[in-house]
This record gives sequence, structure tokens and C-alpha cells, in this order.
Amino acid sequence: MMRPQKRIARSSEPDRRAEIYDAAAKIICDKGFDAMTMNEIAQAVGMTKAGIYHYIEGKQNMLFAIMNYGMDMLDQSVIGVASQVDDAEKRLIAIIHSHARLITQGSNAVTVLVDEVAGLSPAQRKKIIQRKRVYFDFIRDTLEQLKRDGKLKDVDTTVAAFSILGMLLWISRWYRHDGKLTGDQIADEVLKVALGGMLRSPLRALRK
Amino acid sequence: MMRPQKRIARSSEPDRRAEIYDAAAKIICDKGFDAMTMNEIAQAVGMTKAGIYHYIEGKQNMLFAIMNYGMDMLDQSVIGVASQVDDAEKRLIAIIHSHARLITQGSNAVTVLVDEVAGLSPAQRKKIIQRKRVYFDFIRDTLEQLKRDGKLKDVDTTVAAFSILGMLLWISRWYRHDGKLTGDQIADEVLKVALGGMLRSPLRALRK
Repeated sequence: MMRPQKRIARSSEPDRRAEIYDAAAKIICDKGFDAMTMNEIAQAVGMTKAGIYHYIEGKQNMLFAIMNYGMDMLDQSVIGVASQVDDAEKRLIAIIHSHARLITQGSNAVTVLVDEVAGLSPAQRKKIIQRKRVYFDFIRDTLEQLKRDGKLKDVDTTVAAFSILGMLLWISRWYRHDGKLTGDQIADEVLKVALGGMLRSPLRALRK
Repeated sequence: MMRPQKRIARSSEPDRRAEIYDAAAKIICDKGFDAMTMNEIAQAVGMTKAGIYHYIEGKQNMLFAIMNYGMDMLDQSVIGVASQVDDAEKRLIAIIHSHARLITQGSNAVTVLVDEVAGLSPAQRKKIIQRKRVYFDFIRDTLEQLKRDGKLKDVDTTVAAFSILGMLLWISRWYRHDGKLTGDQIADEVLKVALGGMLRSPLRALRK
């Protein structure tokens, strides 16, 4: 799902939309949704403002589209991958590692999901909250299965699921791509902390 | 440092300031900084807008004052308490538990610290980032001491410190005071997850 920021080919409509969402999400991450203008988005992708409006009408709809695009990424790169994994320990590892990698690979749309719900209409907000809830339930269900299998420590699965999300979502606030650790190393470290906090045998799970 | 939302006595200037900051922080948490008006703050504390301006001139200075007030709370209730604790395991426990309790007791000013730095002037932002950095260093130094003492798992102390902060700060997004768990129980559960992820002997540390 991840694509480089600059691309040569600008052919299909889905590609163009993705390009617009990526550019707008970067602006939101840099200066906040309220300060963003449709003109800036147009400039960033080399289109006219009218051209942008051909795809999306207005800032609020743009924000909603970006958030759905971010949720699509989570659906495909995290839930889509992890839900194929039957073993609950391995599934938890897949969730945490793929979500962390999505952030360190620079997905601004996923970062926007964390912060900007206030900019949505009530109906839009409800839809995004529903999609986030599906993801939260997916994580908690995995922890519940681990609990049934006797593999989870004595922790509340709701608090544990939110703690995993907190660790993951916070990465986008502190990660610098020119920092000491690579994105892969950070994903590995967060995984160690999270598994150590949840599983009875975290090292065995990692060696599987 | 925590005070009830409604108080009878409205005497001293520091109290009045705290009342204004609490009211403004609640508005920011409910609807975001950009949507807040000075009039709403005045209404919430039963003052005139001119009365509010006697204390603070303008929204941006109000935000800066609230953030410093939130950092004062962290300084007093978390760093102030934990820095008295020589034993590094007990100090880590004090940090996590007192920060979690600060949030579940409803400190909106601490929540505002997480989200609204974009509303500050560059000079103000620099000062708040510096104060946050002191807190981050305090957590990481504690982890470094645990590493030297052989009590820390094999985890990167920077990633681990940010993971602790992510778990703690995220609480203000999901905690509901009318939920299944009390604030104290949530602090205990987050503590279990965090210690389990970091310490070689988390249960021994909790029993100390």
C-alpha cells in the first residue's frame, strides 16, 4: 500500500487520489488541519484548485477521505495480513510489527487518524470511530483468545489492547527517519516491550 | 495539585487562575483549541471577557499558560513524588502510577499537553518541548539506572521510555470515568503491562 512521495506515472484515478491524500496528510501532519488550505494541496501535487475539487469538495470531505484512506491502509497492511494468521501469538506479533512499520515507513494518513477527528462532521466522525472500533476489537479479540489459551498474563484485555494502541500510535510523534534506530529496529523494540507486558512466554513467541 | 471542578471559595489569584485554566482545558478537550473562544471560558467560570483578559491576553497565551499549568501538575504530582524514590524499580512504579492517576482523575490540562502544540508561537512551543524533554529524560534515566543494575530486559531505553509515555498519554483518549474499571484499577493494569514489558522481575518489583 505504501507508495513513494514522488511518482512519474500519473495515470489512473485511484493513483491520483492516493497522491492527493498523501500530500494533504503530510500538510496536516506538518501544520495541523485547521491551517491547511486546498490551495496548498493543489500546489503540492501540481494541480489547480479546481482540479482538486474534481476529486474532493472542501476541506472537511478531504479530511474524511484521508482518514478512510488511512483506515484502508490499516485494513490492508495490518488487519488483512494478521487475520490470515491462526496462531494468536503470531497474530499479535503480526499486528504490532506491521502497524509499527506502517508508521515508520511514513504513512501520514495513519497519523492523521490519531489527531484530527474534531474536524469531521458528526456523521463522518461516527463512521471513522466505527472503523477504529473494528480495529480495536480485532486486537482485543486476539488478546481474549490468548487468555483462553492460558498464554496471556493476568492483565485486563481492554486496558492491554489500548496500551498496545498507545505505544503504536505514539510512534508517529517521536520517530525520526534520520534517528539512531531504523524503522525495523523500532518495530522490533516496541514488539519486545508489548509482548513482554502481555504474554507469559514472550521470548518463546518471538522464536516461533 | 488536583482540585474539584466546582469550588465554593474563589479568593486568591492563583486559585482563580487555576479555575480559568481548568475550564479552558475542558473546552479544548471537548471541542479542540481552534473552536474555543475567550467568551466561552468567561461563561464557564462566571466572569466577563474583560475579567479573563485581566489574567491572560488572548487565546495563544491562554494555551501556553494551560500547558505550563499541565506541566506544573506533572512536575509536582509525578516528577516531584518519584524523584524522592531512590530505588529505581519503585521510582518507575511511582512515575507510571501517579501519571496514570493524574489522567484518570480528570486533568484536562495534562491532556491538552498531548495534542495542541500547533497552537503555540514558535518560542512558546520551544519552551513546552523543553519541559516535556525534561520529563522524558527523567523516565529514560530511570530505565538507564535499571539497565546498569541488571534489572531491565534487553530493550532500548529510548523506545521503552516513549512506549511508557504512549501508554500513559493514550489513557486520556479512551478512559471513561463511568467505565467498568476505576481510575486506580486502570493505573494498576497499565503498570502491570509496562513493568512486564520492561523489567526482568516485574512481580518482585510490585511486591516490594
